[in-house]
Amino acid sequence: MFASQALGRVFSDRGILGAMLEVEAALAEAEAECGVIPREAAAAIRDACDPGLYDIEAIGRGAALGGNLAIPLVKALTAKVEADHRGYVHWGATSQDVIDTGFMLLARTALAEIGAQTRSAMKAAAALARRHRDAIMPGRTWMQHALPIPFGYKVAVWLSGLAAAHAAVRRVRREALAIQFGGAAGTLAALRSDGLQVRAALARRLSLPEPAVTWHAERSRIFEIAAALGLLSGACAKIALDIQLLMQTEIGEALEPSAPGKGGSSTMPHKRNPVGSAAVRANHRRITGLVATIVSALEQEQERAPGAWPAEWETMRDLFLLAGGSVERTAAMLAGLEVEEGRMRENLDLTLGLPLAESLMMALARDIGRMEAHHRVEAASRTAATKRRPLAEIARSDPQISDVLGEDEIDAALDPSNYLGSAAAMIERALTEAERELEAD
Amino acid sequence: MFASQALGRVFSDRGILGAMLEVEAALAEAEAECGVIPREAAAAIRDACDPGLYDIEAIGRGAALGGNLAIPLVKALTAKVEADHRGYVHWGATSQDVIDTGFMLLARTALAEIGAQTRSAMKAAAALARRHRDAIMPGRTWMQHALPIPFGYKVAVWLSGLAAAHAAVRRVRREALAIQFGGAAGTLAALRSDGLQVRAALARRLSLPEPAVTWHAERSRIFEIAAALGLLSGACAKIALDIQLLMQTEIGEALEPSAPGKGGSSTMPHKRNPVGSAAVRANHRRITGLVATIVSALEQEQERAPGAWPAEWETMRDLFLLAGGSVERTAAMLAGLEVEEGRMRENLDLTLGLPLAESLMMALARDIGRMEAHHRVEAASRTAATKRRPLAEIARSDPQISDVLGEDEIDAALDPSNYLGSAAAMIERALTEAERELEAD
Amino acid sequence: MFASQALGRVFSDRGILGAMLEVEAALAEAEAECGVIPREAAAAIRDACDPGLYDIEAIGRGAALGGNLAIPLVKALTAKVEADHRGYVHWGATSQDVIDTGFMLLARTALAEIGAQTRSAMKAAAALARRHRDAIMPGRTWMQHALPIPFGYKVAVWLSGLAAAHAAVRRVRREALAIQFGGAAGTLAALRSDGLQVRAALARRLSLPEPAVTWHAERSRIFEIAAALGLLSGACAKIALDIQLLMQTEIGEALEPSAPGKGGSSTMPHKRNPVGSAAVRANHRRITGLVATIVSALEQEQERAPGAWPAEWETMRDLFLLAGGSVERTAAMLAGLEVEEGRMRENLDLTLGLPLAESLMMALARDIGRMEAHHRVEAASRTAATKRRPLAEIARSDPQISDVLGEDEIDAALDPSNYLGSAAAMIERALTEAERELEAD
Amino acid sequence: MFASQALGRVFSDRGILGAMLEVEAALAEAEAECGVIPREAAAAIRDACDPGLYDIEAIGRGAALGGNLAIPLVKALTAKVEADHRGYVHWGATSQDVIDTGFMLLARTALAEIGAQTRSAMKAAAALARRHRDAIMPGRTWMQHALPIPFGYKVAVWLSGLAAAHAAVRRVRREALAIQFGGAAGTLAALRSDGLQVRAALARRLSLPEPAVTWHAERSRIFEIAAALGLLSGACAKIALDIQLLMQTEIGEALEPSAPGKGGSSTMPHKRNPVGSAAVRANHRRITGLVATIVSALEQEQERAPGAWPAEWETMRDLFLLAGGSVERTAAMLAGLEVEEGRMRENLDLTLGLPLAESLMMALARDIGRMEAHHRVEAASRTAATKRRPLAEIARSDPQISDVLGEDEIDAALDPSNYLGSAAAMIERALTEAERELEAD
Repeated sequence: MFASQALGRVFSDRGILGAMLEVEAALAEAEAECGVIPREAAAAIRDACDPGLYDIEAIGRGAALGGNLAIPLVKALTAKVEADHRGYVHWGATSQDVIDTGFMLLARTALAEIGAQTRSAMKAAAALARRHRDAIMPGRTWMQHALPIPFGYKVAVWLSGLAAAHAAVRRVRREALAIQFGGAAGTLAALRSDGLQVRAALARRLSLPEPAVTWHAERSRIFEIAAALGLLSGACAKIALDIQLLMQTEIGEALEPSAPGKGGSSTMPHKRNPVGSAAVRANHRRITGLVATIVSALEQEQERAPGAWPAEWETMRDLFLLAGGSVERTAAMLAGLEVEEGRMRENLDLTLGLPLAESLMMALARDIGRMEAHHRVEAASRTAATKRRPLAEIARSDPQISDVLGEDEIDAALDPSNYLGSAAAMIERALTEAERELEAD
Repeated sequence: MFASQALGRVFSDRGILGAMLEVEAALAEAEAECGVIPREAAAAIRDACDPGLYDIEAIGRGAALGGNLAIPLVKALTAKVEADHRGYVHWGATSQDVIDTGFMLLARTALAEIGAQTRSAMKAAAALARRHRDAIMPGRTWMQHALPIPFGYKVAVWLSGLAAAHAAVRRVRREALAIQFGGAAGTLAALRSDGLQVRAALARRLSLPEPAVTWHAERSRIFEIAAALGLLSGACAKIALDIQLLMQTEIGEALEPSAPGKGGSSTMPHKRNPVGSAAVRANHRRITGLVATIVSALEQEQERAPGAWPAEWETMRDLFLLAGGSVERTAAMLAGLEVEEGRMRENLDLTLGLPLAESLMMALARDIGRMEAHHRVEAASRTAATKRRPLAEIARSDPQISDVLGEDEIDAALDPSNYLGSAAAMIERALTEAERELEAD
Repeated sequence: MFASQALGRVFSDRGILGAMLEVEAALAEAEAECGVIPREAAAAIRDACDPGLYDIEAIGRGAALGGNLAIPLVKALTAKVEADHRGYVHWGATSQDVIDTGFMLLARTALAEIGAQTRSAMKAAAALARRHRDAIMPGRTWMQHALPIPFGYKVAVWLSGLAAAHAAVRRVRREALAIQFGGAAGTLAALRSDGLQVRAALARRLSLPEPAVTWHAERSRIFEIAAALGLLSGACAKIALDIQLLMQTEIGEALEPSAPGKGGSSTMPHKRNPVGSAAVRANHRRITGLVATIVSALEQEQERAPGAWPAEWETMRDLFLLAGGSVERTAAMLAGLEVEEGRMRENLDLTLGLPLAESLMMALARDIGRMEAHHRVEAASRTAATKRRPLAEIARSDPQISDVLGEDEIDAALDPSNYLGSAAAMIERALTEAERELEAD
Repeated sequence: MFASQALGRVFSDRGILGAMLEVEAALAEAEAECGVIPREAAAAIRDACDPGLYDIEAIGRGAALGGNLAIPLVKALTAKVEADHRGYVHWGATSQDVIDTGFMLLARTALAEIGAQTRSAMKAAAALARRHRDAIMPGRTWMQHALPIPFGYKVAVWLSGLAAAHAAVRRVRREALAIQFGGAAGTLAALRSDGLQVRAALARRLSLPEPAVTWHAERSRIFEIAAALGLLSGACAKIALDIQLLMQTEIGEALEPSAPGKGGSSTMPHKRNPVGSAAVRANHRRITGLVATIVSALEQEQERAPGAWPAEWETMRDLFLLAGGSVERTAAMLAGLEVEEGRMRENLDLTLGLPLAESLMMALARDIGRMEAHHRVEAASRTAATKRRPLAEIARSDPQISDVLGEDEIDAALDPSNYLGSAAAMIERALTEAERELEAD
């Protein structure tokens, strides 16, 4: 429900079948190119590799029985090739070659889509950070007001998370993809001395890198992809969680974009639910478990593993669909986020200047040291909190403070726009870093 | 692919829709019964709650937008009820009431099916334990031969795991199921003072227990179900792992039942793959991650949670489908397991009586103490291993041993059937315990 | 850091050593009782089983080498027993017997402590629910104001989670504990026909139940304990999350109890951090992973497993320490929670009566049907929200509403204390249920 | 127990304290360098930053109360600095700055150690692959004999996994490390306009990279480190699992190195337990859960998170200790692995040439097509299996085969050394790739 529709199509039953048939066709052609099988056989096999020719449900039933999708598919494909050439179908390959390479073809498409969505999210975040670089709001730590921050600074942190995830996705697109081709035990025994030549030709045809050694039971590539998706999901979940917190009734500083039929409540007409961010957070809880499954499945038996390998299939599919769904929704939320600068400022004032107690303490500390300043400001803060009056007012009338600092100094110390430190510079750096990451693609 | 087909039907899109419609119909009837809505309205709503009337895909699209399945369903249902009665659809309920209660209806059916499959597995295990109670094989610890055990003892341990899981499933069927009915914030506010009366009537109509308090954000029931399924999956995975180890080429003591098209290799005609046990083990790796998601999702915000609650939906569905698939396959494997008693005995002999070194040591220990006996038998064992000759032969010719024990005593100490301890009695106890568990259902 | 100190002592190196020595001593005595070893040997072994006699660090080093704690401990124990009796140390047992049974002794103590802490938390929650049963606050769903609820209702939901966890802890105390005694391969072979008699005597001496069959590789007991701790952690995390949300600066409806040195910020004197709830939530994130490890480790090889079994040791220790730490902190937070009823009411008013739009809609619906009422109240709510004026005021001046309902009816519909449904009754039911659970202990 | 001792020292209480004190000292110096605090204050603070001066247990107690280690440490440090300079301790920093940067210092040391251990493991694997490149053994897929492979090929796959993990560790050493310095809300507000200058100076002094923006609540760096450790653990676990399978009594093709006191059984003198590989596999089960916790903790609230951030601390420490323990043990196992080439060949023969059925089928297929060849060889294989006679013998006397192939052709097809495909070339490629990875460091 919270999955990416686009990736759902990539990893649909038909999509998976199509990728595996593409591998079978390319394999036959690579073998013909290397003189291992006749060119006519390759042509006949290519013709039979049209996904439209197959009964997907029948192949699914065969898979449940045989233990994997390739077994019934190769059988069905063989039956479609005319008798003379039939013997050359799937020549020298094993089921896992076709399933793993087919997965890599789909992963390539999916990672490209996910990369594009991540770039959309980054661009939306960058625009948001620029637009609101001067909107002052309460920075919150431990879920309490801490110091004021520009909203643009908060978004810059989101952006840096997205950029890190994009770099990870970019890296796995470059480094983790590869064909799988090893035959029954990984050695390409059935191809005798032609194995690596065919493997190279297959890699060329599929435009995928060739690995040094068969990775039937060495799954670091799968893990790297899963880890990149987990990181991306986490970057989105951090944003979604912040949006939910900002969108709370009492806070109301930012709101997910609304749309007809989206986020309405079936019983409460006044309500607007954070539907997008809820989906992203739900996805992240699930993705956490899915990544764990892939970590666990690195432990594979011998040359090809029963159990650990099949555990990857639907897990990786779900990971792609959910991470894709999350980044899509995050991009949309960032692009349409309704920012309430007025509420930000109001909320800041609600706390009577207490979040700026640090500023006052630092100003005092120059004269009387940090410990003493801490004590005095703590006392004044307590008074302000108890009496529910602004700290500035209390400080001006408290000789413990006003004997050290003049009224102007107190006011300057308690003006939030004077107390943003390097926030603006950090926003710039995050934007530059993100720009560089976008260009690297 | 490794899921239960039967449970796939229970949790199909149509199955889910049907359960939710059943909740809406029963709710309307309960409200009519309590005088909250007109009887005619309830009848009209019941008529519209025929799952065949709905376009499942359109509802799915609406769910992605609205954030849950109930929103578009209630809308579609309302549209199907004639104008006069329309206003009484979903009266006083919230989306989560319908989704949670609908889930509980499906969970009840699914747990009954899983219980039945677990009982099949237990019966098959019990029969296997009885049939092979005297088949002696190498007990293996740390993946090394330890002492001989009857195969029936190994199966009795499997049976005890299945019985523990069955007890857990039985318990959640009795204790974890409940209706959910709380309205927008859990208090049944819209029903004024009629809330608990309606809730009781709804529970009666659906034959589900009524909770003390709304559990919208208190998810122990969901967790308990997930935990029972995790335990069941683990019991199956332990069996599957043992079968895979027994089925190894060098060992060959037990084999999954074969069937046409099942477990054949696409390239190696001689091979028979442990397809059933691979599915069970793959499922367990995934279930581990799914259970973790449910543990994590116990942490729910306030009165109804965005994020944690939706994370449950597909997770619980997958948990049911995979755990169901595992127990089905385990029942079939146990029912058809090919046991090779001859190979068990041959394998035992392969180790030259070394696994019985303990027996010899214990016999010696009576006279010369355990430490000394340990040293002498360790030496003799090393000799036997180095020379690749039976320990009995070495012991007979080693004065360190033969000065203490006579030849008969050595032979008796090294006869595996004399060294099975309480195995037979434990098999009986496990069978009795399982019998009791089966009767408790 | 966030662990229970009390459980830290239970599972300290010395605590673990002591439990294992207690098992060795009780085993020797049980064997003497059954005539398997001499009474003098049992007495000598008991004398040597004083934990104070052992060098814990040396045993730790031996454990890293030998693979488990029992190997060096049995060696050290044997060395302390005089030569005549030395041979009877650990008679017929295997390392896992001593480690598992030792764990069960510690688990019994730890579960008793955790049960007591959970009861404290329940009592504090019950008192809180009673004290604030009439304090009206905004119920929040999807992190937005929904309908008003009594704070006591929220606490009743917390209480029901704690009660469910307590029931789970109580159940594992009754059902999951057991001695482990199977010898090298589980059959008690070394004890010949005396095995079960000795096992029964050992169980009696340790006051632990006796299992039907050796559970060296059937770990449902361990899983059940882990699951109960996971559930308890989740119940605490739900409360902690709610407290963090209530404690937010803008909300301020409830605050963790403060204490000198607790929750102060190193830089912000005005701040009070939710330190207790942060610990509970941190623990739950970790516990989620720990429970997953135990689920995964159900899959154990053959008669005793390398890998899966040792994975349990520190995982179970951490689970106990963290779950214990969480319930301790939760009990303290509930006992000292500072509840701000005034803020609750103020926050409710902040939303202009919009959370009661449902009430108004239901009132209207009686005359004009739910769909039409929904539309009219949606419009009025939008007006109220836009103009930032109370819904009551808007409704009174909106003929779409005031033509249907009189002013009194509008006011009554929008009075939160009139719109709490069955909250009071549910609080009572949750209290009664909790009372029953407390008495069941 | 299965942790790295060396990393245990790095992450000891004293090690953590030392790293945090180093951060405090470097911060004071960086601030003095930038003219923010007096040089004498920096010198006084540096003097007080000697870990030997502190009572670790008292600081631990303070941490449990205050919620993190930095609070009591800064307090204790402040107390040790003379009154005049005291106020400059921890100037402008927040607890998380010190804890995160301290962690990064320790992570740098730990990753260097882990990198070195991984290189040792790679070198041992490379030597093993070279030494046994011609040792033919049964390749096993789905835990069944498949085709023959050189043992060197199996080791080359192990090596490729270690190389991938090493590349990941190398990458995080280069890219994931960074200082943390943001002050109370991440903006370095207390340092006014000097923030980034001080941050740069601090980074220079600690020789750690400077991030674009504060990463208090953007945890991709932590995740990347955890992922690299998870991958490394998985590479080790795959090797450990294979060793346990090879070490089984019936197989005996490779054995963990033995050592006095290591892997002996307390009750079975003849036994040699795979203690090293059990530790590695136990660690991987735990690491799976630990990585999941870090994935989950990417979702951090606002500017600094309660709950998710503290969940990282002990989790990352455990991850380092366990992954370090695993790679140490793996390096030792590979360096001392006892390889039984004779057993490999014997085991190959045990299966009567059946694993080479594919070779015979491929030879036949050239003349009669793959489907037909499959059928005939399947029949012959079944006969060989049933009669327990070598496939070569059956094939020679089966006209279905001997009419197509001559005796020489049959023998050549069934000679395992003729059927290794590209195994030798792949070993070379894996060695070259590993060499390149080792040089890249």
